Amino acid sequence: MKKHNYSAGPCILPQEVFDKSAQAILNFNDSGLSILEISHRSKDFVAVMDEARSLALELLGLEGKGYKALFLAGGASLEFLMVPYNLMKEGGKAAYLDSGTWANGAIKEAKFFGETVVVASSKEENYNNIPKGYSVPADADYFHCTSNNTIFGTQMKEFPSLDMPIVCDMSSDIFSRVLDFSKFDIIYAGAQKNMGPAGTTLVIVKEEILGKSGRTIPSILDYEKHIKAESMYNTPAVFPVYASLLTLQWLKKLGGVAAVEKLNNAKAELLYNEIDRNPLFKGAAAVEDRSNMNATFLLNDAAHTETFDTMWKAAGISGIPGHRSVGGYRASMYNAMPIESVQVLVDVMKALEKAI
Amino acid sequence: MKKHNYSAGPCILPQEVFDKSAQAILNFNDSGLSILEISHRSKDFVAVMDEARSLALELLGLEGKGYKALFLAGGASLEFLMVPYNLMKEGGKAAYLDSGTWANGAIKEAKFFGETVVVASSKEENYNNIPKGYSVPADADYFHCTSNNTIFGTQMKEFPSLDMPIVCDMSSDIFSRVLDFSKFDIIYAGAQKNMGPAGTTLVIVKEEILGKSGRTIPSILDYEKHIKAESMYNTPAVFPVYASLLTLQWLKKLGGVAAVEKLNNAKAELLYNEIDRNPLFKGAAAVEDRSNMNATFLLNDAAHTETFDTMWKAAGISGIPGHRSVGGYRASMYNAMPIESVQVLVDVMKALEKAI
Repeated sequence: MKKHNYSAGPCILPQEVFDKSAQAILNFNDSGLSILEISHRSKDFVAVMDEARSLALELLGLEGKGYKALFLAGGASLEFLMVPYNLMKEGGKAAYLDSGTWANGAIKEAKFFGETVVVASSKEENYNNIPKGYSVPADADYFHCTSNNTIFGTQMKEFPSLDMPIVCDMSSDIFSRVLDFSKFDIIYAGAQKNMGPAGTTLVIVKEEILGKSGRTIPSILDYEKHIKAESMYNTPAVFPVYASLLTLQWLKKLGGVAAVEKLNNAKAELLYNEIDRNPLFKGAAAVEDRSNMNATFLLNDAAHTETFDTMWKAAGISGIPGHRSVGGYRASMYNAMPIESVQVLVDVMKALEKAI
Repeated sequence: MKKHNYSAGPCILPQEVFDKSAQAILNFNDSGLSILEISHRSKDFVAVMDEARSLALELLGLEGKGYKALFLAGGASLEFLMVPYNLMKEGGKAAYLDSGTWANGAIKEAKFFGETVVVASSKEENYNNIPKGYSVPADADYFHCTSNNTIFGTQMKEFPSLDMPIVCDMSSDIFSRVLDFSKFDIIYAGAQKNMGPAGTTLVIVKEEILGKSGRTIPSILDYEKHIKAESMYNTPAVFPVYASLLTLQWLKKLGGVAAVEKLNNAKAELLYNEIDRNPLFKGAAAVEDRSNMNATFLLNDAAHTETFDTMWKAAGISGIPGHRSVGGYRASMYNAMPIESVQVLVDVMKALEKAI
């Protein structure tokens, strides 16, 4: 039976990424060697890394604008640490928007370095909305936000304009919608949503903001060292970077970020319309902040849980139970999910309505 | 033509690891889903992580001895930072043995934290030997060494007995020989030699040594947090961990570390005998410190370089040019390399002798 994979991440990727990466494990570039056994310094892999770095910038419209792309290890959680190490001055301060669990994790790490101002938080409302109407201290060294909150199903639709570097964790919606990415000075994203499998993290840095914190930075955490080494300061995660390149190539062929955004809007509209129409369901997030990547919703009557769960499982759907912090359901509709899979879920929701 | 892959790392892995991991990318555990698209919290992947962690301890004879195994991100280079963060007291000191480029990298990171005593160094001799006869300050918080120096082709045959935690970077020879691993308190190793593809790092920690530094440790660098989260503090590198499990399963079927050590000794003996016998070649490392993983050697007369290079390439050999710090050649003979491939290299060396 066809599977409809709604996993929040690691998540669905294009079938051609599976096919091509499986082939590369058996025989990479017709070399007679596996992608798993070649040196990261080999010509073939250096070409992979170079193309992945430049394609990431191209897809975001950031080529020739003073940015460098890096594929680092350690996940977005390591960036929580690297960002203040590289940007927060000794005795300086940073401003953070607290819009969810991961934003909160970033705040905790920043506090190791210095004054960390939380400009606004929706924690008291269990992060069911994006805080708005906040002001950012003019003397902050940088402003940090999280564009999409996977757990709660909220997404920032607008970003502030500020006279300081803006850092954004885009782990769960990068490459899914058109933004003026040149508003940001650092963008980082764990690969395991729209970019590839788990195991590598894309970090995009505007070079001119670096080298100003006055801190001595351990080598492995220093963006300047990684840039100088062309993202090969130490052995990169060869296979995850290769599979990410395949995913970015797929996106480019599809027409890029603008083309996939239209598909993502159509998928989100289809599902949210049903959540709002169907009397059995309600959305979990504030309507104006709803994420096009992760739709969180609940049954109005928990007594229907078992019936609904049996029905979606029978339809080949997996990965939609909600995170324990929200409960209910979470349908993650990343770039590679076809609208046909969303239709299957909507049909199950309609069938539930008829059945009871 | 059959390839003989002498790459220093990432490097040759067993063919069954390639076959099984390619299959898992197309359909993992007959789930209809790829290993690249499943949640790290799914039952199937939690089982992979649990088995990989316990099998690593089992193969090293460390089960039930107070150790925990973690699969972390960031490479051994991130451990250079995590070790002092977790073990070096505020105002304390650490003792390091400087036996090569990576040992030196570890020393540089430790210096960010406090007094870092280099107990001995072979840097002046271009690291062609393992320093001996050193003494370690009794008041050091820990002693750090590197068991095998990939670049220079040297390997520690003996380790000191000390009344302090011993930390060892075993990136390039873990699982290749029998040692009393319980002498060590932290063992770490980037996967990309004997354990799997690039992208994950095995860290084995004796739990009782943690929590004593008095430092506040950023969450992502705190071994205790990773242990508490059962190596899932953040999203692990799913595929690299899975391919590492396949490699460890292969090693267990082969008979474990003792069995592979015999094969490794036979391969090393075959090649070093030829290096010593053949008047055209000489070894680069001190004989008593020669590595069984990486044999470094040079032509006595550089004029034969082109002829030799043409011959080994024609024989299907790849990856033997030496590191720029040493020059000449480096033949890396990790666990998965069959002795037949070593024989091919030895035959080429003999053929060169006849040809000129």
